[in-house]
Amino acid sequence: MTLRGGIDLGGTKIQAVMVDEAGEVLGSARHPTPTAGGPPDVAAAIVAAAREAAEQAGTETAALAGVGVGSPGDVDSRAGTVTSARNLPGWTATFPLAEVLGEELGTSVALGNDVDVATVAEMELGAGRTYSSLLGVFWGTGVGGGVVIDRKLWRGRASAGEIGHMVVKVGGARCPCGRRGCMEAYAGRGAMEARARKKVRNGASDELFRIMEKRGRPRLTSGVFARALERHDPLATDLIDRAIEALGAGIASAVNLLDVEAVIIGGGLGTRLGQSYADRIAQSMLPHLFSDSRPPAVLVAELGDLGGAIGAALLVKSRARRRRALAAT
Amino acid sequence: MTLRGGIDLGGTKIQAVMVDEAGEVLGSARHPTPTAGGPPDVAAAIVAAAREAAEQAGTETAALAGVGVGSPGDVDSRAGTVTSARNLPGWTATFPLAEVLGEELGTSVALGNDVDVATVAEMELGAGRTYSSLLGVFWGTGVGGGVVIDRKLWRGRASAGEIGHMVVKVGGARCPCGRRGCMEAYAGRGAMEARARKKVRNGASDELFRIMEKRGRPRLTSGVFARALERHDPLATDLIDRAIEALGAGIASAVNLLDVEAVIIGGGLGTRLGQSYADRIAQSMLPHLFSDSRPPAVLVAELGDLGGAIGAALLVKSRARRRRALAAT
Repeated sequence: MTLRGGIDLGGTKIQAVMVDEAGEVLGSARHPTPTAGGPPDVAAAIVAAAREAAEQAGTETAALAGVGVGSPGDVDSRAGTVTSARNLPGWTATFPLAEVLGEELGTSVALGNDVDVATVAEMELGAGRTYSSLLGVFWGTGVGGGVVIDRKLWRGRASAGEIGHMVVKVGGARCPCGRRGCMEAYAGRGAMEARARKKVRNGASDELFRIMEKRGRPRLTSGVFARALERHDPLATDLIDRAIEALGAGIASAVNLLDVEAVIIGGGLGTRLGQSYADRIAQSMLPHLFSDSRPPAVLVAELGDLGGAIGAALLVKSRARRRRALAAT
Repeated sequence: MTLRGGIDLGGTKIQAVMVDEAGEVLGSARHPTPTAGGPPDVAAAIVAAAREAAEQAGTETAALAGVGVGSPGDVDSRAGTVTSARNLPGWTATFPLAEVLGEELGTSVALGNDVDVATVAEMELGAGRTYSSLLGVFWGTGVGGGVVIDRKLWRGRASAGEIGHMVVKVGGARCPCGRRGCMEAYAGRGAMEARARKKVRNGASDELFRIMEKRGRPRLTSGVFARALERHDPLATDLIDRAIEALGAGIASAVNLLDVEAVIIGGGLGTRLGQSYADRIAQSMLPHLFSDSRPPAVLVAELGDLGGAIGAALLVKSRARRRRALAAT
């Protein structure tokens, strides 16, 4: 049985998995993303994570059908390159990631956009299995999105799915992207952390940061938010309420435009906070839904933390399918 | 040569056209929409307009390949019914429009959503001919939208395209739909007129209403707005500036989600104000576009006032095609 490798390349962690034909995970490894250096250092960390996951699955990377990588930044899957990945160290220029990884791993490497592969994973194997149209909403450091129409990922001219940068308030809060009033300016964990720091400087409770330090985290991770919410910290509660209000308006806007059957909430915060918060998002969509008598299903991503890596492994599958399709013509 | 009839059923006017196989208009008639009575009165006015247009084209309705009707409200094209068409008199229940018209006109009648048929008309015969993905934005009494993906109209579960009810300002202005902060609350001519009346009561210049009365209009039509803008009326200028700001944010949000190749601006205001205002909308999208180095084309609808009726006639064509397709199986 030939396994496929999948890598989810994130700003804080590199998640590697080895999956079989059915998408079952037989090995996995998680390494921190280097915070200094440049693309070659990130590539080396990916190689280490892939080797560890392969070993755990009782194989080696050269024996894999291939490795798929879901990457942030501007991914050119044909050229096998990644350009200007903001959240990765020193990654402004174009780097031939597929080629570099392929040489080290001894197998072919396919690249895809991180959010796209996570969306496809949920459609194929996760919460979106039974729907023909859906929105994937990845609520984490930023807010990413994937659009599935007739069971196909819609990428537009290359960059469809930027749901986090839908405008929910003209002239509103400054977004990490530099624009104003984007959904991510209210709901992204990055923007929420910046606001939390400001609020604490102005005298708000510093519970969030005390939990962060106690856990030895450099940032307000999803786990830190979850703990503070359990403790009814007013600042965490206020930030999450504000995020949910923005998510409700932005996702409802997308549903008004596309009338999809389902919305899948993933990402660090989405999977960590779970279905009760997805239900709150559904509730906060209602006042804005044009067809409010028939809202879409709002579900938490089923593949959780591993969704991105499993989806990346599916890139290998589709490449093999393409080869079979080409061979058949 | 067999002609097809097309009817654009609007809140203020009923536009009928007769077109040949190439979509060329050979006859047309425009009647006011009844402002009192109920669905049978509206149906009678449609019949009168269709007969006049057919006569102008040198034929009679019974000799047509069929008649298509683009209707507001909740259109069930299979059942041939229209339910709760807000802008038409006494039209709250379900009315069998296709059957009633078919009996009077002596030919088969197909129904479609008014905005959908106008979008398809622009894709097939108008400004969208060369694009594979586009958004139709119909800027009139309300703001309607149509989504084309891979040259197919995307209807979602039935009601995709409600671009006017995308939220551009959480907690913002009250929309005629009853919700808050919708794009239409700022950009719809209905909402603009309500705001104009309030502003005039509070002492603003009444130029808009003086033009309206001079032209014998009951409402602030697109022509009234165009004239007031030519005269640099500050109230009209302010209302249109505000509309363009909302259109820029809302359309940019849709483009961030879908990354379409083109945006086609139609509707009463869109076609009346023309390309220079479409250019202003494009400009007002820029600060919100995630891929701002590669904005979509923003073009005025080419079929103008007749687009809805021509698109409705295409409903007949596609039905004939369906019949051919069924016959071939």
